[in-house]
Amino acid sequence: MGGDHGPTVTLPAAVEFLERHAAYSVLLVGREPDLRAWLDRHLPRWQHTFSGRIDLLHADEIVAMDDPPAVALKNKRRSSMRLAIEAVQDGRADAAVSAGNTGALMAIARYVLKTLEGIDRPAIATALPNRTGGSTLMLDLGANVDCTAEHLLQFALMGCALVSALNEAAGESSGRAPTVGLLNVGEEVIKGNDTVRAAGELLRGSSLNFYGNVEGNDIFKGTTDVIVCDGFVGNVALKTSEGLAQMMGSFLKEEFMRSWSTKLVALIAQTVLRRFAKRVDHRRYNGAALLGLRGIVVKSHGSADAYAFRHALSRAADAASKGLNDKIAGALGTESGVLRV
Amino acid sequence: MGGDHGPTVTLPAAVEFLERHAAYSVLLVGREPDLRAWLDRHLPRWQHTFSGRIDLLHADEIVAMDDPPAVALKNKRRSSMRLAIEAVQDGRADAAVSAGNTGALMAIARYVLKTLEGIDRPAIATALPNRTGGSTLMLDLGANVDCTAEHLLQFALMGCALVSALNEAAGESSGRAPTVGLLNVGEEVIKGNDTVRAAGELLRGSSLNFYGNVEGNDIFKGTTDVIVCDGFVGNVALKTSEGLAQMMGSFLKEEFMRSWSTKLVALIAQTVLRRFAKRVDHRRYNGAALLGLRGIVVKSHGSADAYAFRHALSRAADAASKGLNDKIAGALGTESGVLRV
Repeated sequence: MGGDHGPTVTLPAAVEFLERHAAYSVLLVGREPDLRAWLDRHLPRWQHTFSGRIDLLHADEIVAMDDPPAVALKNKRRSSMRLAIEAVQDGRADAAVSAGNTGALMAIARYVLKTLEGIDRPAIATALPNRTGGSTLMLDLGANVDCTAEHLLQFALMGCALVSALNEAAGESSGRAPTVGLLNVGEEVIKGNDTVRAAGELLRGSSLNFYGNVEGNDIFKGTTDVIVCDGFVGNVALKTSEGLAQMMGSFLKEEFMRSWSTKLVALIAQTVLRRFAKRVDHRRYNGAALLGLRGIVVKSHGSADAYAFRHALSRAADAASKGLNDKIAGALGTESGVLRV
Repeated sequence: MGGDHGPTVTLPAAVEFLERHAAYSVLLVGREPDLRAWLDRHLPRWQHTFSGRIDLLHADEIVAMDDPPAVALKNKRRSSMRLAIEAVQDGRADAAVSAGNTGALMAIARYVLKTLEGIDRPAIATALPNRTGGSTLMLDLGANVDCTAEHLLQFALMGCALVSALNEAAGESSGRAPTVGLLNVGEEVIKGNDTVRAAGELLRGSSLNFYGNVEGNDIFKGTTDVIVCDGFVGNVALKTSEGLAQMMGSFLKEEFMRSWSTKLVALIAQTVLRRFAKRVDHRRYNGAALLGLRGIVVKSHGSADAYAFRHALSRAADAASKGLNDKIAGALGTESGVLRV
């Protein structure tokens, strides 16, 4: 029940999620009296409407957005974040979703769930829209600021397993293995630093469908299905994109709000502008998977609203119903020779 | 006379530059008969119109876009790129502008011009638009894929000197030293990798107006005047931005071109849309400075058109007329204690 807005966002999102996905139920973890009070006030008949589909789990503490991961892990063993992840670990939940402190979420998830065989470090992965109308899965987005070539290979394996799982489930499986691009400063093999060049070698030697080096603009071109990079680079690229999209959006708005005549034009163009806004709405892409754990954990943007948070819930439900972690484990088994290089 | 389009772009840009800036002249370096033929064909009276303001310098060779920097440096000593930089070195030109191979340009410029006292490695810097209506100077954008903390400090010094020089000349000097942000994955001092944390220490100990860590979205927010990062991260951030801006632009166009009715709306909205397009037109920001050399070299985007290339020429002219390199050398002198840490 974390994030910048807490239950005022996550609870409406959970309710809408339940309304749209009849097969799922939710376990709400937080201050139980508060959760119950909200439900009673906003959905007086919730126990009837969602019969058996809403469970409450009381947590005494919360992890603050600025708690250092080590503090959250060691001193807050009864936090809502910890209990939600433990619920995944003991099978009461199929996935955990949080809008809280990313570092703490990663530390707790790693400690409680452990990593999959063959994975040194979990990675944060998210799907970004691209010009083809599809999406590009990018990882790592900030879990690991220093990576070795082997880590980048592991990220590629996990990313491909995720894309395959989602495509298969969507009936879009073309039989073609997902393509992987290695984020670099140029296409040529000799480009980049030592780590990235070594990762290129490993990827070429793997059984993955490795495209080669890609550059920043390839993310939105949709050159490959998966793009791997270290968490420092991925985090900067993601946040730079958010900043640019916001700037372009506000410039567009300013131009249409400049005078009464441009406001009239905006009125005439509103259907088109709304379609455009919907298409570039980053909220539809909310929900980054923490890949490589023995359990499904999805991180929502801290500033997510209810619409965005519902998308994160849907992503978690999708990953769980499609047996994401079994698929990743299977892919890792196939590549175990490579991983032990 | 390089880049993706060669003289068909650079020559019209040079002519337009001369028309707009009466105080400047140009030295065109390339295959002299070709240059002369183009001028004779398109501006039959060029020797009269631009009396004494166009000089031609013949070069036998060109550096290809895919020449490795070492090959361009060692085997192409009569290339147009080399001769243009030598013209800066021997004082025949105040600045060199090229749309050619970035790696080769950097290698040749560094070899011919040498770096300023106190600078280990030149950096590529460019101004990006931000939401305040001003711009954010960002460096390095790809010259150095591996950087030490000391390099990042040097980039900050050079970036501030450039911003100061341009502000002073524009009469916008507020007496306030430019603010510097260190690109990182979070605002807190503990964030990032060892190099970035060490750079933070150096910057805090310097006489620069250090703001602290900034994140990717701060580039377009305009949180600071200067943002420093290593060339790998900067290159990815820049190209990611280009890719996203192109995607958003094409989505907007697609929505307005969807049907006859939306096309009609586009017609009505065209003035507003054009103002928006102009505002986000990356061509106006073309021209990245190679900072830290004993001479001014500006790199244009390889795919620049004449409009964009003219902006690169203007940037070079600006930097030269404002004594950029003296300003950088002065700033380095002030900080020499810090640089020898």
